[in-house]
Amino acid sequence: VNRWPTGWLNRWRTKMGRFFGSDLHVVNIGVSEFAHAISSEGGAVRVVDWSPPGGSEKVSRLLGLLVNHPKVEAANKKAFRQYLEADPLLIGVKSATEVVPGFGDRMLLHSGPPIVWEDMCKPVRGAIIGACIYEDWATSPEEAESLAGSGEISFSPCHEHQAVGPMAGIISPSMPVWMVQNQNGGNLAYSTMNEGLGKVLRFGAYDSEVIQRLDWIQNVLAPHLSDTLQRSGPIELGPLMAQALHMGDELHNRCPAATGLLLKRLAPDLVTSSRESSDVKSCLQFMGSNDHFFLNISMAACKSAMDAAHGVPYSTIVTAIARNGVKIGIRVSGLGDEWVTSEAPTIDGLFFPGFDSTHANPDLGDSSITETAGLGAFAMAAAPAIVQFVGGTTADANASSRRMAEITGGINQKFTIPNLNFRPINSGIDVRKIVDTGIEPIINTGIAHKESGVGQIGAGISHVPSQVFIQALMSISDIVLEAVESSYVG
Amino acid sequence: VNRWPTGWLNRWRTKMGRFFGSDLHVVNIGVSEFAHAISSEGGAVRVVDWSPPGGSEKVSRLLGLLVNHPKVEAANKKAFRQYLEADPLLIGVKSATEVVPGFGDRMLLHSGPPIVWEDMCKPVRGAIIGACIYEDWATSPEEAESLAGSGEISFSPCHEHQAVGPMAGIISPSMPVWMVQNQNGGNLAYSTMNEGLGKVLRFGAYDSEVIQRLDWIQNVLAPHLSDTLQRSGPIELGPLMAQALHMGDELHNRCPAATGLLLKRLAPDLVTSSRESSDVKSCLQFMGSNDHFFLNISMAACKSAMDAAHGVPYSTIVTAIARNGVKIGIRVSGLGDEWVTSEAPTIDGLFFPGFDSTHANPDLGDSSITETAGLGAFAMAAAPAIVQFVGGTTADANASSRRMAEITGGINQKFTIPNLNFRPINSGIDVRKIVDTGIEPIINTGIAHKESGVGQIGAGISHVPSQVFIQALMSISDIVLEAVESSYVG
Repeated sequence: VNRWPTGWLNRWRTKMGRFFGSDLHVVNIGVSEFAHAISSEGGAVRVVDWSPPGGSEKVSRLLGLLVNHPKVEAANKKAFRQYLEADPLLIGVKSATEVVPGFGDRMLLHSGPPIVWEDMCKPVRGAIIGACIYEDWATSPEEAESLAGSGEISFSPCHEHQAVGPMAGIISPSMPVWMVQNQNGGNLAYSTMNEGLGKVLRFGAYDSEVIQRLDWIQNVLAPHLSDTLQRSGPIELGPLMAQALHMGDELHNRCPAATGLLLKRLAPDLVTSSRESSDVKSCLQFMGSNDHFFLNISMAACKSAMDAAHGVPYSTIVTAIARNGVKIGIRVSGLGDEWVTSEAPTIDGLFFPGFDSTHANPDLGDSSITETAGLGAFAMAAAPAIVQFVGGTTADANASSRRMAEITGGINQKFTIPNLNFRPINSGIDVRKIVDTGIEPIINTGIAHKESGVGQIGAGISHVPSQVFIQALMSISDIVLEAVESSYVG
Repeated sequence: VNRWPTGWLNRWRTKMGRFFGSDLHVVNIGVSEFAHAISSEGGAVRVVDWSPPGGSEKVSRLLGLLVNHPKVEAANKKAFRQYLEADPLLIGVKSATEVVPGFGDRMLLHSGPPIVWEDMCKPVRGAIIGACIYEDWATSPEEAESLAGSGEISFSPCHEHQAVGPMAGIISPSMPVWMVQNQNGGNLAYSTMNEGLGKVLRFGAYDSEVIQRLDWIQNVLAPHLSDTLQRSGPIELGPLMAQALHMGDELHNRCPAATGLLLKRLAPDLVTSSRESSDVKSCLQFMGSNDHFFLNISMAACKSAMDAAHGVPYSTIVTAIARNGVKIGIRVSGLGDEWVTSEAPTIDGLFFPGFDSTHANPDLGDSSITETAGLGAFAMAAAPAIVQFVGGTTADANASSRRMAEITGGINQKFTIPNLNFRPINSGIDVRKIVDTGIEPIINTGIAHKESGVGQIGAGISHVPSQVFIQALMSISDIVLEAVESSYVG
């Protein structure tokens, strides 16, 4: 699983190699005061152009502490094993308020790290306006907006309720959610149903078409799917997702194969329900015409696997990457409930006609849970056709998957990539490796218009800023150092 | 479209390059008598180690005649344009006897070039036995066999009736067939419904399970699909197949994506039929659990495109490659009804547990119409996961697609391969280019047990022997030479 020494140690060796066999006496790396001291004594000194991992001596020292530290290694091994052993089953559909833990009365869940109404970006505000109208808490956008700002509604991150939501990620009490259970750990994960592309709630649109669609999902689609799953029994998501990876999906921004495979599984039991055949038809049409329909299920499956790996003390494995359109936040297994956040990055991508980067909101959504689990952009080589959606070339897609391998702790043999000769996906993003290599995780993502009410305007790739990992490294170091110190006390 | 000079002319130039700037007087290539004559006169001669294309001086001369010949070039341009412009629509389902042209009363169609009962391989005989029982022409295998050998049943190649059949390819009068129409040329193509893998008629099995499945296809599946297509209207196969190529299908031995896309299209109108919901369910289950379900439709689509390119005088474009398990035959646009045949090749592949190459029948089936149209093994780079089924590595799959480009006349922009950075498929196999380069077309194919009654035992890759193309080249040359001579008569 671990491939230490890598990164800066190797780079150091490479740089050193240039001087071997020369007349060199001293090579100074790092803090320049040392060099000054030696040269003032008349010694020969060459200062190597080098910066420590994480950009500071302190971070470099802390990285040195955590690399190969037995507590961290054991914790990561445990966390990664729990991720690997996770076995997500699609078990049912219920309303959020019935099943999502900690759901309050006037509460809305949102994507990304915690944020207050005043700080929210406009697409998220738009989605909240829509949710208030959908829940009959307001009858107009104006009323909804003043309600949302009144303090009467509490906002909480999906991730803190075993849930995930794409883009704005709003989950309101009446919304039906997919229930995914990790058969091994027993933990559950929840996600809403995908509305399709374009003018939809999760991209900040809230007009009557959006609300009507949400009503139809609640009143027609969800009951049908709930019935169907009860009759067909749970669907094993692991094998289905592995097959989709062999059919050109990366299970984040490309899900047509997984959607088709799901439909093949659901359709036979859907048609023998006692319900109206015209409703069954509309369910099949809705699911069949939305290539992203499986996305939310993929997210819940990944969430159930990453939650299984969460909460292992001292572990440096990243268990969530999530964006609220203003901040990007990560959760790390060994950091418990702590979010480490930074500014949400901008997205480099392709825009729908009539839009460009000046219209784009910064990065948004919990869907990067797929990358956290080794899918999405991490498995982009499995989905070369995605470059038509997010930009770049097939070679870029392959290079992305190979580069992400540098910052992950292991491989997941359940998922293989045909294009890379059936190489398993790399997963278990390790905070230490990102700090060490300076390689930032990438995300395949949708682009929302920065104003509310518009919707999706493109898709592309974003980078999770390395600062959050440096900060996380320091937090874990504190915990490890504290443990070491307290062990002396005893 | 054309890239002359290639092949032997380029190789000749390369070889020549070695001598430029030397003291050389004469280089002799080919018939050695010339060299002898010169050297006996005291000249400096070097004999180049070289063999003419097609292995003989005569073939080499005829190739020289056809390369860049204006009649051939114009004919190929026309044939290739008609192939490119073909626009296959899935328009309906009817029984073979109702729609397949030239279907006689006691007639069975089979795959590959013409063959008589006595010469047929056992899997084809097995399928014929099954068809006789299915048609109620016989009540036992023994009765069926004696009937088939009695001369009362006439046998004819599917290809001569605008039809195609995978493996044994038996089409009997009562079997329902897919109807595919080339919207541009108007021509129709037909194929049976895919039965699934394993113990099925097309692999030579004929027990009661096989016959019951055929009955169910006739009595349940076909009427449902016929109704559904009437209500949904025709399905455009080109865009669906192009999308499947972006989802890891090569549309011959890998069709799960296309099958899923078809199901998405059919399911909504299937459920609103007035028929029993349990029958609708069984239809959805049958189609959804057979990843090869789309294969026969892919074949009919390719047949409709290749028939559009067929019958252009002087054209050297191959319009069919088909195997009957004993012989492999090709049809060439400029050769009309003539089949050029050779021994059916053996298959290099992967076998199901308990079987090996000693159990394998030689190559069988009309499914190589997909390769003829630039799909199947020619587009293998689109389907890297297929190597788990037919053997080899992902790199082999990519190399195959690139190598096949050497023997095709052009590209088809409707179908692109993400793995090769959206390079269009190469199609329009040109007899001249195969003779010129010596590269034999490859086929992704299933492997039938050589005894009847067993079924499929593996899958792999076969090569179409170059002799058939040499022979075809000579036939076309005769026609061209005749035309040239008759033009002098006038």
